[in-house]
This record gives sequence, C-alpha cells and structure tokens, in this order.
Amino acid sequence: MSWQNNLRSVSPYIAGEQPELTDMIKLNTNENPYPPTSVAKLFIERFKTKTLRLYPSTDAKSLRKKLAEYHHLEVEQVFIGNGSDEVLSLSFLTFFNSQSPLLMPDITYSFYPIYCELYRIPFQKVPVDDDFKVSIKDYYIENGGIVIANPNAPTALALNLKDIEEILKKNQNSIVLIDEAYIDFGGETCLPLLKKYDNLVVVQTFSKSRSLAGIRLGVAYGSAEAISHLYDVKNSFNSYPIDSLAQIIGEASLMDEHYFQKNIQKIIKTREVFKESLVNLGFEVTDSKANFVFVHHPKVRAEELFKALYEAKIIVRHWNQPRIDDWLRITIGTNKEMNKVIEFLKGYLKKNEEIDEWKK
Amino acid sequence: MSWQNNLRSVSPYIAGEQPELTDMIKLNTNENPYPPTSVAKLFIERFKTKTLRLYPSTDAKSLRKKLAEYHHLEVEQVFIGNGSDEVLSLSFLTFFNSQSPLLMPDITYSFYPIYCELYRIPFQKVPVDDDFKVSIKDYYIENGGIVIANPNAPTALALNLKDIEEILKKNQNSIVLIDEAYIDFGGETCLPLLKKYDNLVVVQTFSKSRSLAGIRLGVAYGSAEAISHLYDVKNSFNSYPIDSLAQIIGEASLMDEHYFQKNIQKIIKTREVFKESLVNLGFEVTDSKANFVFVHHPKVRAEELFKALYEAKIIVRHWNQPRIDDWLRITIGTNKEMNKVIEFLKGYLKKNEEIDEWKK
Repeated sequence: MSWQNNLRSVSPYIAGEQPELTDMIKLNTNENPYPPTSVAKLFIERFKTKTLRLYPSTDAKSLRKKLAEYHHLEVEQVFIGNGSDEVLSLSFLTFFNSQSPLLMPDITYSFYPIYCELYRIPFQKVPVDDDFKVSIKDYYIENGGIVIANPNAPTALALNLKDIEEILKKNQNSIVLIDEAYIDFGGETCLPLLKKYDNLVVVQTFSKSRSLAGIRLGVAYGSAEAISHLYDVKNSFNSYPIDSLAQIIGEASLMDEHYFQKNIQKIIKTREVFKESLVNLGFEVTDSKANFVFVHHPKVRAEELFKALYEAKIIVRHWNQPRIDDWLRITIGTNKEMNKVIEFLKGYLKKNEEIDEWKK
Repeated sequence: MSWQNNLRSVSPYIAGEQPELTDMIKLNTNENPYPPTSVAKLFIERFKTKTLRLYPSTDAKSLRKKLAEYHHLEVEQVFIGNGSDEVLSLSFLTFFNSQSPLLMPDITYSFYPIYCELYRIPFQKVPVDDDFKVSIKDYYIENGGIVIANPNAPTALALNLKDIEEILKKNQNSIVLIDEAYIDFGGETCLPLLKKYDNLVVVQTFSKSRSLAGIRLGVAYGSAEAISHLYDVKNSFNSYPIDSLAQIIGEASLMDEHYFQKNIQKIIKTREVFKESLVNLGFEVTDSKANFVFVHHPKVRAEELFKALYEAKIIVRHWNQPRIDDWLRITIGTNKEMNKVIEFLKGYLKKNEEIDEWKK
C-alpha cells in the first residue's frame, strides 16, 4: 500500500501548443486574429483595483443578466463558467450520470472522451460517414446522453436546425448537449429550440468569435431546471470560478455588437478566399462553418506537411488518430497570414512535384 | 425514465453572502479589508488588452516559476488553480480515490464534505475536543487520506509543525492535505516538511493575505510526483483555468513583499485589540491565528446576536450546525470597522442586561 494506490488515473487532454516565439504564425488553437472590442480596454483602464480584495459574484450576476437579455432568455436559463471547457466538464458531471453510454461522434472534440474517463461515464463513439458527416439516425439508440459539437471540430461541418431538432425529439429522456463553440462563424444556433425542449443544453464561448480566449468565459443555456442542477454541481465544485475582471470584460464585449459582427464577417471572408486558394492547389477542404478549415492533399502526407509548415514557423494542428491522420486543421488568421500560408504551400507543392518528376 | 434520472444529486456549498448594499460592514467571508499592492494596479494599467485574443498559459508558467522561487521549491512542486476552492476540489478528485474514508475534523471548512459527496468519496468526521482542538492521535487509524485546515476554520485554531509532522509520519500511505488558506496571519506553515514527506500536499491562496479574492488564485505545493498527478486531473478538467490578467496580477503581488508583510501585521494587531475588547465584554474567544475570530457569549444566543448585527448592517457568519450553533465567526476588518462592532456590542449587551434585570 502507498498513497499512489489512491490516485485517480487519467490520460489528460493535450491543448494546442502556445509557443513563445513571437515570429510564429499561430494557426493551431482557433484563436481570433483580431483583438477584442476597444470597450474591453476602456473597462480594464477604469477598473478599480482595490475591489479585488472582495470575492466576485458567484454566478457573475450582472453578466448573466446581460447574456439573458442578449439572447432573449430568462436569467435562470444561463450558466457562466470558466471557459467552455469548464462548462462542458461540469455539464458532463451533472447530466451524464447514467449506466447507458453517452453518445458522441467518433471524430469530434477530443476532450469529450477525457471528461468521460475522469468521471467514469460510459460512452460510445458513433462513426461519422466517409465525408465526416454526422448522420442523425445513428443517435436513435439507447443512451445516457448525447454530445455533438456544431459546427463539429476538427471537421468544421455543421448540422442544420432541423437535424438537431430530430435528435432532440427522439431523445427526450436524455440531455442533448450541443457544443456551439464555433457557431458564430456561419452555423445556425439551436438556441431557439430551448423554447420547445427542456432536455437541450447549448454551450457557447467568448474565446473564439469574441476574441477573449485570455479571460476564460464559457456559457451554457438550457431550461431553468437543467441550469439549476448545473449550478448545484458548480457550487459543489468552486464557489467563485469567474474573476471580477473577466466578468466586466465579458460585459464590455456584449456592448459592441457592431465590432463583433464586423470581426466575424472579416474572418468568414478570409476563410472563403483561403479555401478557394487551397482548392486551386489541389486540396480537399470540408465545407467549413467555423474559424478554421480541415484540409487534405491527395499527394502529400498531412504529417509531413505539418512538419514542413512548422519549420516555416507556421503552426497548425495534426492528430495521429485513425480516419483523420491525413488531415490538417488550420485556423483562419489575418489575410496577410493566410497569404503567407498559401505562398508557402505553393512553393512546397511545386518542390514536391519536382521531386516526384525526378523520381520517375 | 426522464433526463432527470441521469442527474448527479448534490447539496451545494453556500458561500457567504455578497451584499450589494455599500453601507454594510462586511465581516462574513474573511476578505482582507485593505487593497492589494499598488503594483497590481500598475500591471493592470499596462496590460495589453489585445493579447486577450490568445489563450493563457495552461499552467500559469511564469507565476508558477515565481512562486517556486518565493518558497524555495522546484517549479514541479507548484500547482496553480482557480482559487483554493478549485485546488481543493481537484485535489480531492486526484488523491482521495480510495474505499477507506477520508478523515477530517468534524468542525472544519464545510466545503470538504461537499467535495466528498460530489465525487462519492467515503469520509469520516473526527470530533475535535471540547475546546475545538484537533487531537492528532485520532488520525492514527485506517484512512484513504486526511484533510486538515491549519489554522482551522471557523475555529481559527492552529496546529504546530510538530503535530503536523506526527500526522504525516503515521500516515505515509495516504495523502495528508493541509489547507493553509489562513496561514499568513500567525500560523506556522508546514511547507518545510515537503523536504521529508512526499505524501504532504499544502494548499494556499491569494484571496486572504494578498487581498486578491477577486482574481481567483489558489496554489498547491507537494512532491513533484503528487503535483504531476494533480496536473493530469486538471488537464482532464479544464486546460486554461487561470486567465491572463489573474496570472500577471498574481506576479505583481509577489513583487511587493514589504506591503504584504505590513498588511498582515496591521490585521494581526487589529485582531489582538479586537479580541481584548471582546473578552472585556464577556465573550469567549478562541486563540485565533487567522484573519477572523470565533466567538461566543455566555449570556446571548449567537443566532440572536447574528440577527441584531445584521440589522445594524454588520454581516458576520453563523452556522446552524451542531456544536457551533452558539458561536459566530467575525472577519477582522479595519480598526474603524472593528471599533464600530465593539460599540454596537457594548450597546447591545447593555440593553440585554437591562432587559434581564427588568425580567427578574
């Protein structure tokens, strides 16, 4: 016997690298290339540091109220957590407490099975089709819950509202958790379905479309009943997960709708131009509704391309994982950054072709 | 069957009230009455808001390094979390994964049994003696871990280093978690014992002595092995629990040792004067080594006094709980605040005495 016998054994999630080199083009963690609204800067400047001696509001009360107004929901339908990873984690712990397996796509956010391992939640991976599409009828089987990222990551593909509703209809005895981390980049939010389904929980984040990955704000929306259970678990975990500064910066973000929309449109436009350039270079690119693209080239191994990009100081994401090991996920950065990526790829593919020619 | 069947049922912790009335004397959550160091203000002013688009360091790398230097430990012995409540929560999940019960005093931080319920950890409450003292020999029994707050809350009593070492010696097959949230106000930290015991985990916080309850920084210190397991669980829960601003504000706090020490000494001095005044009014007061006192008056029911104080806009803490329901916990505020409390108590006790006289 030793204290090591009492340890919880887990295989943690490995987040995308945060390199310290400043001359890197960082397209590996789906961060927004543009800064947050200037209102955030103003709020930080005006912040009274002396108030930091006090605990923050346990439920980020003021921000919670503003989010409810923003989405035309009741305050009781809104839960705020320390980034959407915490919101997801606490949601898994709260809602998926069943002997039946939690269903999730086999290709999806790789944190989901890790939460399951941590909390010992049985789960079953449901294969997406050969085009990485989620086929809704596969979710009409016995389960203890369902989690689907929409748009999905890393595939970037979105389900439409009708499909989500079908899944909800067929699973009224389970919580259906829709992870909308990337919804603002072209997907269709299922928040309107909250009016009809009390088993729906929708998770969103301030990290991507609101350029606020640095302050850790994630949100869950659901029925007042579901959200109250989520708060009970949160209040059994940590009374004050959101610090005072994060709460006011979140509010600042909600006050500048014009900037928010402009920022999103800029990224969508860059994505579409970048996609076209990739297709012209022979890449296969999924129909992205997110701030990243998922790409594959028939003539180049993804892992090799990943390494070549890394050497050229362009960091993207690659998974050594069945079905997607020949694909790369590339975050949409600024136009300038994406042009540099295209320039690099042009050169790389040309060189590759010359080598192929020479080998013949 | 319904989705409600799959819920995790818990009874959450109820944090001390954060009233919105500004004319309250708030002595209910052990906050520091003085602001954090002015270096924090400077760092916030200089903060580059545009960097918030990026994720923070997953392990608050720079702050972690500085904390290690501050305490003469290795970086690998330091864990940083979102307030000490999160650190405790993740520690319970990581270290107390046993069929044998976790031992804790029966009078202690009321969050401990709530973590146990959340994670289904068996636990056993070990009674403190009639003077609320932890008697170390009670911890020489089979267990899956031990958690002791030192100084304890709400009793404010501290164990000495020798006692802690005895507990460690007798329990080398369990993690012994010492919660030092209030250690800087007169207790003796057991950090030096880390050199000898790899089963020791010490938890501290920036919320109390560093006046930074608003930014949520808690720390665990332990053997590199124990801390690496804690990080594995943290990385299975949330990749980025500490936001960018909290990380730099934490660093600011460590840079102003002079202010930190001065602040603590001021609070200790106020506490001693306040204690003396209370004793003069007939109160029983424990030997506090914390930034609060635990008090009882032989002639007044604590609950009545709590209500009378509340009506006078002075908020303290009372628990309707066996053994301590006739006691109050009062945070040490400024001299001015504590003088007001004493003035109120004088008047209240006098009136009470008059009523008693009249009843005879």
